[in-house]
Amino acid sequence: MIKVGVNGYGTIGKRVADAVALQDDMKLVGIAKMGMDYKTRIAASKGIPVFSAGDAKGFGGSGVSLAGTLEDMVKQCDIVVDCTPEGVGAQNKSLYEKAGCRAIFQGGEPHSLTSLSFNAYSNYASAIGAKFARVVSCNTTGLARTILPLQKDLGIASVRAFIVRRAADPSETRSGPINAIEPEREVPSHHGEDVRTVIPDLDIETAAAKVPTTLMHMHYVTVRFAEEGSDRDAVLEAWGRRNRIIMFSGKEGVTSTAQVMDYARDLGRPRGDLYEIAVWDDMKVEEMELSYFQAVHQEADVVPENIDAIRAMCGVETDADKSIAKTDKSLGIRAKKED
Amino acid sequence: MIKVGVNGYGTIGKRVADAVALQDDMKLVGIAKMGMDYKTRIAASKGIPVFSAGDAKGFGGSGVSLAGTLEDMVKQCDIVVDCTPEGVGAQNKSLYEKAGCRAIFQGGEPHSLTSLSFNAYSNYASAIGAKFARVVSCNTTGLARTILPLQKDLGIASVRAFIVRRAADPSETRSGPINAIEPEREVPSHHGEDVRTVIPDLDIETAAAKVPTTLMHMHYVTVRFAEEGSDRDAVLEAWGRRNRIIMFSGKEGVTSTAQVMDYARDLGRPRGDLYEIAVWDDMKVEEMELSYFQAVHQEADVVPENIDAIRAMCGVETDADKSIAKTDKSLGIRAKKED
Amino acid sequence: MIKVGVNGYGTIGKRVADAVALQDDMKLVGIAKMGMDYKTRIAASKGIPVFSAGDAKGFGGSGVSLAGTLEDMVKQCDIVVDCTPEGVGAQNKSLYEKAGCRAIFQGGEPHSLTSLSFNAYSNYASAIGAKFARVVSCNTTGLARTILPLQKDLGIASVRAFIVRRAADPSETRSGPINAIEPEREVPSHHGEDVRTVIPDLDIETAAAKVPTTLMHMHYVTVRFAEEGSDRDAVLEAWGRRNRIIMFSGKEGVTSTAQVMDYARDLGRPRGDLYEIAVWDDMKVEEMELSYFQAVHQEADVVPENIDAIRAMCGVETDADKSIAKTDKSLGIRAKKED
Amino acid sequence: MIKVGVNGYGTIGKRVADAVALQDDMKLVGIAKMGMDYKTRIAASKGIPVFSAGDAKGFGGSGVSLAGTLEDMVKQCDIVVDCTPEGVGAQNKSLYEKAGCRAIFQGGEPHSLTSLSFNAYSNYASAIGAKFARVVSCNTTGLARTILPLQKDLGIASVRAFIVRRAADPSETRSGPINAIEPEREVPSHHGEDVRTVIPDLDIETAAAKVPTTLMHMHYVTVRFAEEGSDRDAVLEAWGRRNRIIMFSGKEGVTSTAQVMDYARDLGRPRGDLYEIAVWDDMKVEEMELSYFQAVHQEADVVPENIDAIRAMCGVETDADKSIAKTDKSLGIRAKKED
Repeated sequence: MIKVGVNGYGTIGKRVADAVALQDDMKLVGIAKMGMDYKTRIAASKGIPVFSAGDAKGFGGSGVSLAGTLEDMVKQCDIVVDCTPEGVGAQNKSLYEKAGCRAIFQGGEPHSLTSLSFNAYSNYASAIGAKFARVVSCNTTGLARTILPLQKDLGIASVRAFIVRRAADPSETRSGPINAIEPEREVPSHHGEDVRTVIPDLDIETAAAKVPTTLMHMHYVTVRFAEEGSDRDAVLEAWGRRNRIIMFSGKEGVTSTAQVMDYARDLGRPRGDLYEIAVWDDMKVEEMELSYFQAVHQEADVVPENIDAIRAMCGVETDADKSIAKTDKSLGIRAKKED
Repeated sequence: MIKVGVNGYGTIGKRVADAVALQDDMKLVGIAKMGMDYKTRIAASKGIPVFSAGDAKGFGGSGVSLAGTLEDMVKQCDIVVDCTPEGVGAQNKSLYEKAGCRAIFQGGEPHSLTSLSFNAYSNYASAIGAKFARVVSCNTTGLARTILPLQKDLGIASVRAFIVRRAADPSETRSGPINAIEPEREVPSHHGEDVRTVIPDLDIETAAAKVPTTLMHMHYVTVRFAEEGSDRDAVLEAWGRRNRIIMFSGKEGVTSTAQVMDYARDLGRPRGDLYEIAVWDDMKVEEMELSYFQAVHQEADVVPENIDAIRAMCGVETDADKSIAKTDKSLGIRAKKED
Repeated sequence: MIKVGVNGYGTIGKRVADAVALQDDMKLVGIAKMGMDYKTRIAASKGIPVFSAGDAKGFGGSGVSLAGTLEDMVKQCDIVVDCTPEGVGAQNKSLYEKAGCRAIFQGGEPHSLTSLSFNAYSNYASAIGAKFARVVSCNTTGLARTILPLQKDLGIASVRAFIVRRAADPSETRSGPINAIEPEREVPSHHGEDVRTVIPDLDIETAAAKVPTTLMHMHYVTVRFAEEGSDRDAVLEAWGRRNRIIMFSGKEGVTSTAQVMDYARDLGRPRGDLYEIAVWDDMKVEEMELSYFQAVHQEADVVPENIDAIRAMCGVETDADKSIAKTDKSLGIRAKKED
Repeated sequence: MIKVGVNGYGTIGKRVADAVALQDDMKLVGIAKMGMDYKTRIAASKGIPVFSAGDAKGFGGSGVSLAGTLEDMVKQCDIVVDCTPEGVGAQNKSLYEKAGCRAIFQGGEPHSLTSLSFNAYSNYASAIGAKFARVVSCNTTGLARTILPLQKDLGIASVRAFIVRRAADPSETRSGPINAIEPEREVPSHHGEDVRTVIPDLDIETAAAKVPTTLMHMHYVTVRFAEEGSDRDAVLEAWGRRNRIIMFSGKEGVTSTAQVMDYARDLGRPRGDLYEIAVWDDMKVEEMELSYFQAVHQEADVVPENIDAIRAMCGVETDADKSIAKTDKSLGIRAKKED
């Protein structure tokens, strides 16, 4: 049993913690948090040990009994998944290092922090035994998920993608804009480079704009194939050979990110999460070019990747496909079609 | 076993159907729907019989095998819960009548359609054995839930409420406004009168405005007590004696409808639903007046009411408290504090 | 000619500066600003002298030639209108005091800063000759505008108001929420008390919630008259005796804040501003109670108040009605109906 | 003096009417409208003759005296600008034809209606003397404005554009979505083809998604040049040789469509309109590829195009540059830099 701690218990942390608790080869040691909030209250009520990541005052008067400090938690863990806010993870690295504890960081931290960015289908093997790794961001994970199968099975010359970014998570109410479209004025955007941390040498260029919505990011992706002959069926087959991609059709009323998320809620998963990348089947495949829309549930798509990263780094499973299948079965993600 | 059909499978219908399936004294005969969509696809994939409410063409090419027509479904039912769009329910009444089938309508239909509007805590007894009833709307249910305990336990002179309405449901993308506040220019609004269909003779007056959000309605309620002496503790006790009210505190980060819904998702319920009315504990109780904010999850709060209405109308349970306790246990709603 | 400087050149500052420039008894000395932005660029291109409120570096490379520092500007002014962000105004007071310069602060500063809060119709006379005053906030101004005529002409027993607040200004993109309703958990809200700084002894209580829109605040106001006999006509007459109130009818398509602002743009005023408080005529007057909806253009309604405050404090006009008429003519605000 | 009528008095119609009234070679005969609303009330109060486009009942009780019917207006006109809702224009064509009156339709109508689509810089000459023409839509106008200079001056191999569409106009409150991103599932979108109606043979492909905002459309455009050697300065020069393009810099705080529109309001134009296409100067020019963001004020950018179309069709000015200069001077659009 891999002993796992989760540092930071927000949007990603609480989902990773729940996913860890579902694995039969992992044990959730506890969560670490700066102070009390409603998320931590629910965690405590479920019996998850709560450690204090800062001053214990943050829990004063909450009635929650602390299991110790962050340092105490780290000592009990084989690996910590750091889900603290962007930039804080980097500051925590030395703590993990000193304790001889493995650690996974999230996509808000720079690639240089670990020199190893992770996506299960892309580079599981390279993470085996690693001390530190970084699971790439929700957008990068989304791009890697649908691009890698095309690259491996059909061959890609180049990728261009436009990212329509949701501006805040559903539970986050401080950030705007309320009524504006905000271009990422840095052209091209950093997302393309980040994809290359898990799919090296890919010719990819991205641009992005932020819009006033909370549910999902939307990507418009244009792939130029390396050779002629890849038709719609070939594309669907390449995607069908992997888990973590789910196809939607406008014909059955899924016309926006709103219905995708409603569909996910209907599936009955915890929190209505969609771990898969949602792809609309109204795509265009012409000559050597494929264009498609996909949507990314930013709260959830990196969760199975974190679970696989734990397994790879702790060396309990060396076969990517086996880890992915195990993770996905536990989370209710539908398995790929068997050949 | 009460044989229940659900006509209409949208936001409310799908939730009522799932709730019926959880009851040990009910059997879900099936759902009726005009045509194919993603919601029906999931229902079919779960093995729920699908009946055609219109022309079978609506399902052409969908691959879903129909269990029959709406008429066929009605014949097999003791009671139908009509969850069709506003105004359609009224047109369906004669169909149910002809088949000798009981029917429940939703709050979009007028009180006059059944002359019996229903809220479990308010008037369960009056629905026992009834052929037709109408479960009041989400907003009316929300007001009745917190007002009735105060009226019964403490005595109310008058109620004034302002309703900040969400403009569309999360899965509904056609309606606006996108950037405006829209007053309900009819002053007072119809909600007050609707509350009186379940709490007769209450002196209540309401007004409302629509705003660009999808998650929950928000109510600001001011209650004038009939007598002196009701303090904060008395209010909390009155509410604590009933289920279906849940208190929130801004101190733990629940500062808007967004965090309330995030909390509900953390609870692990299907679709992240909140059946309870969310009340902020930052209320004011002064002299003879109480003012508080509450939020209503419009997709979910009427679901347990529909289940209780089924039980009352079919006469299998004549005690309101017992039906409520049974319904709530099945849905994971926390029971009231025992005295 | 009153020599007026404007410190802070954001949403309010730029409008006050333009309004000052329109007055034949005032001269705009210039504006002071911390650093360069698009607003200041336009000001400079119009020939308005720009003073540096902070380090001159804020203007480095902008090509704008500075007219001096904030201190330089203050020295040349009879009065400064401080339109800096909330809280900054208070820090500036000693600077104005030292220079012997009068100053007006905005509603984000506390009443205690000046002990004199200003609204032209409410208390013009009390500001005559004052060294410091504070123009009350957009919401307080909006409430005072429609309440005062009723109080003076008809007599008020009490006022209850619910404020649906826009969450950010149109040009402000950092603040949320994007999809939530946020109650002001402090019950009652501070707005009622603030109204009493300009209408003393008024029995008023307010509550508020913030919603994801940028255009206008919306108020639902219920006024209880002191005596019987005030009907709809009496109310319309009381309002008609003053400027700065404008009536709208849902019948001609003005159904939300969006159409009110579109109407204002059609009027052809600079920036499409609505200086008046917009009141819907679909109000309810019954027995001794009046209920109505009004909308407040938060960017603009305090602008004429600032102009009147300048005139009162500098003592060039001691008659409120004359100053109001003069201000409003210059801004294109329609005059009251003459009796 | 060209006698011009405007049929339809909504977002576009009212702006075209005002622009016509500003031209010294045109006379506004009047506007035609189906019924009364606040926009028409303002028009009437300004003395613009109002004609009834439908049953005169639409104006019953409004107090506005009608100047006649739509047919009456058409008889008095040399040309009518049809600004009726999408699809209605096509139905009106025979009316204009019968009366021997020229007519301009808007971009919501299909190109096939007139076989002549118009954009001033693209094909002014081809409209000289034409009976019927169609001014292309706001998005197509926006693309043509920045693409044509590059094509003519530098040579283009291909264009790819992603369009982030505003979902509704500021005054339109019925349409959603409120919280979703909606892909245009038709890939590629129709916009590319529409650009070819004014820039024939251009290799252009577009895709689009709709987002919950009202202010402006946003385009991300990637242009592949036909030859090497076009650098940033060459691009800026090409754009600088034409009117109707305005550059913005993120450095001065213009970071989204919200600040662009605030800037336009600061310019002091009627309704705060921006007739120009707003282009961010944070663009990328590398090797043979240029990528940039631009924003389109959908309420306004086609207005000057309609004025030029009138002049071309009525044959009073055969030189495109002269008409553009005249139009732009009247509207306050800054002229191109003189070489």
